[in-house]
Amino acid sequence: MKFSIIVGQSGGPTAVINASLAGIVENSLKNENIENVYGALNGIDGILSNNIIDFKYESSENINLLKTTPSAILGSVRFKLPDFHQDNSVYEKIKEKFIELNIKAFFYIGGNDSMDTCNKISEYFKLINFDCSVIGVPKTIDNDLVLTDHTPGFGSSIKYIATVVSEISHDISCYKKGKVTIVEIMGRDAGWLTAGAKLASLTSNGADLIYLPEVAFDMDDFLNRVNEIYKVKGHALIAVSEGIKDKNGQYILKYRTDTSADNFGHLQLGGVGSILAEFVHQRLNLSARNVELNLPQRCSSHIASLTDIKEAYNCGKYAVKFAIERKTGVMVSMKRVSNKPYKIKYVPVLLSSVANLVKEVNEEYISFDKTNITDKFIDYALPLINKEAKIKYQNGLPTFSKLEKHKI
Amino acid sequence: MKFSIIVGQSGGPTAVINASLAGIVENSLKNENIENVYGALNGIDGILSNNIIDFKYESSENINLLKTTPSAILGSVRFKLPDFHQDNSVYEKIKEKFIELNIKAFFYIGGNDSMDTCNKISEYFKLINFDCSVIGVPKTIDNDLVLTDHTPGFGSSIKYIATVVSEISHDISCYKKGKVTIVEIMGRDAGWLTAGAKLASLTSNGADLIYLPEVAFDMDDFLNRVNEIYKVKGHALIAVSEGIKDKNGQYILKYRTDTSADNFGHLQLGGVGSILAEFVHQRLNLSARNVELNLPQRCSSHIASLTDIKEAYNCGKYAVKFAIERKTGVMVSMKRVSNKPYKIKYVPVLLSSVANLVKEVNEEYISFDKTNITDKFIDYALPLINKEAKIKYQNGLPTFSKLEKHKI
Repeated sequence: MKFSIIVGQSGGPTAVINASLAGIVENSLKNENIENVYGALNGIDGILSNNIIDFKYESSENINLLKTTPSAILGSVRFKLPDFHQDNSVYEKIKEKFIELNIKAFFYIGGNDSMDTCNKISEYFKLINFDCSVIGVPKTIDNDLVLTDHTPGFGSSIKYIATVVSEISHDISCYKKGKVTIVEIMGRDAGWLTAGAKLASLTSNGADLIYLPEVAFDMDDFLNRVNEIYKVKGHALIAVSEGIKDKNGQYILKYRTDTSADNFGHLQLGGVGSILAEFVHQRLNLSARNVELNLPQRCSSHIASLTDIKEAYNCGKYAVKFAIERKTGVMVSMKRVSNKPYKIKYVPVLLSSVANLVKEVNEEYISFDKTNITDKFIDYALPLINKEAKIKYQNGLPTFSKLEKHKI
Repeated sequence: MKFSIIVGQSGGPTAVINASLAGIVENSLKNENIENVYGALNGIDGILSNNIIDFKYESSENINLLKTTPSAILGSVRFKLPDFHQDNSVYEKIKEKFIELNIKAFFYIGGNDSMDTCNKISEYFKLINFDCSVIGVPKTIDNDLVLTDHTPGFGSSIKYIATVVSEISHDISCYKKGKVTIVEIMGRDAGWLTAGAKLASLTSNGADLIYLPEVAFDMDDFLNRVNEIYKVKGHALIAVSEGIKDKNGQYILKYRTDTSADNFGHLQLGGVGSILAEFVHQRLNLSARNVELNLPQRCSSHIASLTDIKEAYNCGKYAVKFAIERKTGVMVSMKRVSNKPYKIKYVPVLLSSVANLVKEVNEEYISFDKTNITDKFIDYALPLINKEAKIKYQNGLPTFSKLEKHKI
């Protein structure tokens, strides 16, 4: 008996979340057990508001181009499901829509929060004995999902970060007396992305200091180190995670509102890097600047890792395989079978063991003095950025997928 | 009679300033009239302090890699020469060093200020009848040099800007109710780089509004427009030049210090984009953020324009040709012979006609309502970003030239 499937995207986008979508769509469209391949616009919201598209109207060229198209092409959402013991009305609406469309597999591509959504729906369907595979497909540049070697999106993000930090390292060293340059990198709870700046040391002088949220930040120690580095080199390059905190657990980002009379909401708008630059300027009397890498960290598909794209695609492909095998309540996880040669196996892990948990950077990846990253991290991370995406350029610009989005 | 040549780099670096260096070095090394090919470290400073390298010790592979290596590999400098009528001591030192090394051609790769340096040295040499060709090689991402169709460095910079703005445009449109995103782009005096954001409209929704320094900025009008756009689309994307001013000529960047009690030097550190984001947040009660493109605008060699690299190289090559022809006091200029097909001719222009002048964005490139860019600009700019640099990757990262820098 044929059935239909539906896929949604959720949470912050990445450079390869659409590659996972391509993996699901291509492999569903050619699967003889699957009747219709639906996409929910803006995740759960699309299911509830009947904003659902049918992929049979999309060209294979546009589906293929998804592999190098950033952002979540179906639209994303941040939607926290209630506890179904308290209120099951949303769950019932989803179930009714699935019955109407003969949907027996639901794929949700997302991070920690989305895996929680996925898990709740899966648990509810089990409770009411509703036959529908619920499969989570991992996605986050933050690499902070547990029970997977790494997450799709991370490799492309650190390929971008390492490339840009390396280019900046070249740029800033061209003056005899230069500036102190702070590079602010995403990652509120875990420092994986900031650790990625370490890879820049393979092709440049790299960052002189690297600070992660996992390590208590000491402002005086930081300023002393910067001063020493500047004396020797005439410039300094520091990679810092937006989420660094002091030994009392206070975000360094909050230092500004605590010490100034400023009422313009800088806490929201200014970054921690500009605070560090201010301290360097005020206390050391050195010229300093902040380079916040910002959104390009999650959408620079023009320099996406081909390894990452392929893995993101495979996560989608294996999600379909698991659904056909009638697995449910699982996330597709990547297990590193060997490092040399680098080899990944795709296995199911329980959504309930993944949802809402955060994986911090391993201690062995942080240097003894806690201001740098070890070579063990390089061994771990380097395979993830290997090979370059084949970008389709037109008139000198990367081209992107444009879906018809034919609504049902 | 054989003679030697020397080359220096000056001012802010670009993604292709080293490509011009490669053009000078490769074509000098193989020229039978040229004995030694020297490089001055940190521009004029290297000539005065005898920090000079000999290119015969560099491998052809490393010289070739210069074409895709960002920053000024010889080191840069910001050095304002005095009026030689007042004080000719520096000029005399340069002359003596040139006599010592039998240097009869001096190439200086730089922007407006560097062309001033070049012009002064050339004028002095003429005054004292010292036989040395002084040739300026244009370089600036700002595209604000007069008497040249465009400048090497500009094409790569707007290729980066257009690509990133296009990727960001995709990224920010994935939520039903998103944010107002301001993209802050370099260019204090001229809006060429910010105009480059227009090219993103070829592969995405592009920027909704584009503001250049050439147009007086009206905060109320800006806020009204943002509000209207947000109502329709649920998000807004604005490209803004760091140098925008109001109708009184006041930098918008100064609005912060004028309206807050903040004493942490935000004027220096915060960008105009964050000020606009603050106004949007305060006055319209919309979530807003600033994405400052920052240093990557001038050093993202990984997405350099191949057309730009070739032109930068050719500017160096023609500089050598002009020196052999014993031209002096000239800059290599690019003249667009035709647009379809795009064709450039390299011609000498007088340094004295270029030095210290700024070329603003043509009026015909600015839309009637002055908040966008016309298709005429696209016709002008599109050929400059055409084709992609062939980047040599290793382990997933771009590799860069590393010179021996063998001192004489």
